[in-house]
Amino acid sequence: MKVSKFGGSSVASAEQIRKVFDIVTSDEERRIVVVSAPGKRFSDDVKTTDLLIALAEKYLQYGEAQKELEAVIARYRDIADQLELEEDIVAEIEEDFQARLQLSDDTERFLDCIKAGGEDNNAKLIARYFQSCGVKAEYVNPKEAGLLVSDEVGNAQVLQESYDHLYRLREKTGIVIFPGFFGYSPEGNLVTFPRGGSDITGAILAAALKADLYENFTDVDSVYAVNPNIVDHPKEITELTYKEMRELSYAGFGVFHEEALAPAFRAKIPVCVKNTNNPKAPGTMIVAKRRTNGNPVVGIASDNGFLNIYVEKYLMNREIGFGRKLLQILEEEGLSYEHTPSGIDSLNVILRAKQLTEEKEARLFDRIQTELEPDKVKIERNIALIMIVGEAMNKTIGVAAKAVSAIQNANVNIAMINQGSSEVSMMFGVKESDVENAVRSIYQAFFEKAYVS
Amino acid sequence: MKVSKFGGSSVASAEQIRKVFDIVTSDEERRIVVVSAPGKRFSDDVKTTDLLIALAEKYLQYGEAQKELEAVIARYRDIADQLELEEDIVAEIEEDFQARLQLSDDTERFLDCIKAGGEDNNAKLIARYFQSCGVKAEYVNPKEAGLLVSDEVGNAQVLQESYDHLYRLREKTGIVIFPGFFGYSPEGNLVTFPRGGSDITGAILAAALKADLYENFTDVDSVYAVNPNIVDHPKEITELTYKEMRELSYAGFGVFHEEALAPAFRAKIPVCVKNTNNPKAPGTMIVAKRRTNGNPVVGIASDNGFLNIYVEKYLMNREIGFGRKLLQILEEEGLSYEHTPSGIDSLNVILRAKQLTEEKEARLFDRIQTELEPDKVKIERNIALIMIVGEAMNKTIGVAAKAVSAIQNANVNIAMINQGSSEVSMMFGVKESDVENAVRSIYQAFFEKAYVS
Repeated sequence: MKVSKFGGSSVASAEQIRKVFDIVTSDEERRIVVVSAPGKRFSDDVKTTDLLIALAEKYLQYGEAQKELEAVIARYRDIADQLELEEDIVAEIEEDFQARLQLSDDTERFLDCIKAGGEDNNAKLIARYFQSCGVKAEYVNPKEAGLLVSDEVGNAQVLQESYDHLYRLREKTGIVIFPGFFGYSPEGNLVTFPRGGSDITGAILAAALKADLYENFTDVDSVYAVNPNIVDHPKEITELTYKEMRELSYAGFGVFHEEALAPAFRAKIPVCVKNTNNPKAPGTMIVAKRRTNGNPVVGIASDNGFLNIYVEKYLMNREIGFGRKLLQILEEEGLSYEHTPSGIDSLNVILRAKQLTEEKEARLFDRIQTELEPDKVKIERNIALIMIVGEAMNKTIGVAAKAVSAIQNANVNIAMINQGSSEVSMMFGVKESDVENAVRSIYQAFFEKAYVS
Repeated sequence: MKVSKFGGSSVASAEQIRKVFDIVTSDEERRIVVVSAPGKRFSDDVKTTDLLIALAEKYLQYGEAQKELEAVIARYRDIADQLELEEDIVAEIEEDFQARLQLSDDTERFLDCIKAGGEDNNAKLIARYFQSCGVKAEYVNPKEAGLLVSDEVGNAQVLQESYDHLYRLREKTGIVIFPGFFGYSPEGNLVTFPRGGSDITGAILAAALKADLYENFTDVDSVYAVNPNIVDHPKEITELTYKEMRELSYAGFGVFHEEALAPAFRAKIPVCVKNTNNPKAPGTMIVAKRRTNGNPVVGIASDNGFLNIYVEKYLMNREIGFGRKLLQILEEEGLSYEHTPSGIDSLNVILRAKQLTEEKEARLFDRIQTELEPDKVKIERNIALIMIVGEAMNKTIGVAAKAVSAIQNANVNIAMINQGSSEVSMMFGVKESDVENAVRSIYQAFFEKAYVS
């Protein structure tokens, strides 16, 4: 059996939902379908989720938001009309949103609840469409299915007992249409997942149901070896491992949020990334182990928006605990870091810049100065990280040389390098203004010229 | 004024001491002379310090060590005879050692006290020789001069007040002959410095006396760009900065112990490394700032004997404090580490292998397992680190590419790379069995071919 998840653009319109129907019904293994809220139909379109955020905010401020609610309902009505569904489904959806708006006394949960309505009602609508086509299908609500999560608003983590509950979905004889993005706390509160929410729901279901495959339908034919905004028509990746996928999505690879697939990975369920608009394309398989194809590098990811905290102190390495103390200050300030390349008398801590508000930066600076008494502290901004990823890399001589030479050929200075033993990636830090040139040059070196290992 | 320190081989015999006399008296700026104990006269010779250790150990065990004492005295007598000094100096030295042997009730301090006798008596003997040549010279004892140190046996640290005391040596009108390697605690205990002891004494005196130059006489013409045991006749370094020297000596560069010159560095006193056996050679100047000579790399150091603790845990970066906790465990186990290259789900900690006894390793393993619950922990042994050093490196595009390519050309796999921003060095981790090939290839790339930046 397969769990198939369809992203926002795959369920954005009647036309798209018809494609979903064709895909699902063309393979009887496709028994569990996870759906997002209707996404963009064209590049300037507004996603339902954004309409819902506007609705919630307006309602919180003014106690009414008729125009915004109408915009949301219009999206569903439009789809229902074109799918030739009966009017009552739209009335049902409107009633549902009206009920959600009554929960505005708990501001924190209110937004979660309104947003989740996007997926929830789309699942109802799609189930109705499947039924109208004479297919046995039913909408299943996460509460009813027992998808229990931790009670962290906007950051739900699945609870272990959910897996047993959800396994029972196997008993359903028809197609299950399941809304992505949210679950319920043991106390019965609706709570949404963090970024990549619908992907997470699909991954949890695939793991719980011990699916043979988790299909993740999106609007690209495959995962690409490099960001298509940087390199035109990059190579498609036919197969990559969980670890590789994770390294790639970690550093700005658009397809998945880095942790979204974790439940499937842990359960060793293979994942296939496919295109709703071109379902015949083989897509990209994400697996626990893969054959190598001669190229030790599977992909190149890059992301802007990092900064480096550079701390210098003569004889730093004589001070037992220096590095630990620096990391502890960061921890106490709630900052998470990415890498810590070090010299003898210096330590670098690379972190995502957006974490550091002006106030936090001032306090951090102050604490480092007074608690560590360094000779020098400075913050270097506008750093981009490039990750070169591939499981065979650390067994292949010359990958580092090729990568570093490629960056040099682009006339880019490498500010930082970080490569650990047994790693599936190599990290380079460069200036943000240099990153695209560097990435293009690395891509050329590993993917455009025949690779000689 | 110059402070001139002469190492063990420079004061190992009458012939060597005559060279020292010629060197010191050829420049009237050489007013403070720091001497070691007599070192090896030929490659199989036994250093006085080792004779003294044998003496102390035998005496502690049997309450007498006549033969061992005689061997020590014989070294001094031999020198004194050949320098045609009067017999009483040898009697004085023997009496001194006899007195030191009486202190054996405090076992811990006993060894320090016996070892320090090597330098102390050599200083007396050399002062006597200078006097016998009609030069105004005097032996000065560290206690009398006020060289106060912390009371840590074998690991003395200079106390701040020493600098004012020692400055008064400027008032001496003759040449001061000062024994290296030890000072006195404020309570009057003799305490020796850690590794590089006589170098430390010289550096402290140079800083205290605000010398124009600290000359460090040894038995090589200069500091070499690479270990002469790995590369034949390597290039001599004419000038390098304190930071560069420190990075080089840190990773197995034989000339200095990494912290020995610290007091001179802090006081910004230039240091010159010269050869007692070829004093006309210009030697190597170590300075705060230097001109660049077109080659961004000044030297290559390497050292064996490291190990890597590799810890892998899926979603490690979601666990705030993971890295800090690992470093804290190391700290609590009294282990100091060198570098921590990291991946997304993995962390490497490189440390000197000799720190990790079997018992400590078992406990460390156990603590990491139970306190951090990683997916995988392993210890990788027999790792060598290579440091490529040069202050201009991080401003020069292509250094990393050249270095990495050179290692690849030697057919060596790079296990780890670590380069921070603003660093004066780049670190590579390789297998111990590969290190010499890698170093030779890097040396060729940067020093044998004309450098094109």
